Amino acid sequence: MKTKHIFAAALTLMVAAGAKAQVKPEDAIDYRQSVMNVVGHAFGPMISMVQGKIPYNKDVVVKNSNVIDTIIDLPWASFAPGTEKGAPTKASLKIWSESEKFKELADKAQQAAVNLGKAVKGGDEKTIKTTLGDLGKSCKSCHDDFKLKEARN
Amino acid sequence: MKTKHIFAAALTLMVAAGAKAQVKPEDAIDYRQSVMNVVGHAFGPMISMVQGKIPYNKDVVVKNSNVIDTIIDLPWASFAPGTEKGAPTKASLKIWSESEKFKELADKAQQAAVNLGKAVKGGDEKTIKTTLGDLGKSCKSCHDDFKLKEARN
Repeated sequence: MKTKHIFAAALTLMVAAGAKAQVKPEDAIDYRQSVMNVVGHAFGPMISMVQGKIPYNKDVVVKNSNVIDTIIDLPWASFAPGTEKGAPTKASLKIWSESEKFKELADKAQQAAVNLGKAVKGGDEKTIKTTLGDLGKSCKSCHDDFKLKEARN
Repeated sequence: MKTKHIFAAALTLMVAAGAKAQVKPEDAIDYRQSVMNVVGHAFGPMISMVQGKIPYNKDVVVKNSNVIDTIIDLPWASFAPGTEKGAPTKASLKIWSESEKFKELADKAQQAAVNLGKAVKGGDEKTIKTTLGDLGKSCKSCHDDFKLKEARN
């Protein structure tokens, strides 16, 4: 699937999944925070392996990269217009005022997760670590622009 | 993998993943709630399809069942001793006083997710709906015993 189509596909799936036209903003915020929390927990130990802080563990990399690859597309649709506020959130308002750029960075992160999944299937530790680094950079790139340091209401 | 081994495998993975011996209880609570939230969001539209409330959508079932199958094992290890309280939680204290029963029901839910995944791969809508119903019953069975109706501190 081409990168540019992933975001659209995710949106289509979410809509088809029965997402209501008017999701409560607090529920959307809670959901996207939950997904990001799970992604972060999966990523944390892997980046510690890349940094040499903990030993490389293939089983963990297989499991955790699969978690990320499987769920990283879930939150995008929950940044729909109307969900800018409603609960404490670190989502910058730029997500909605610069939505094209946000989509672009979200797609890049998603593609980085796909690349990691391919590398894990390939099994070469060096390639896996490179793609993990790329994924980390991609996440950071989006967070730098669109994630606030402190939650706002 | 045999059902009885799944819980142990999940624990092993979490430990290997670099989980600290002393995870902050509030972080463990936040994490397990996040995973359950994502599982619930994936399950919701599928059970609505089984109940005929929304049309059956194969793409959504493939996607959402994969999400559940991939992450349903994640929360168990975050119910470790010492994480009984620390933030508002609906986790009953029976999880820790009747941990064997909790593990058994958690394993059953996990096996139900595996069965759903197999049914989805098989592609027969009737079998998929049956396994979805079984997964729902399995989740409910555990929630009835171990999830409080109101959050406690």
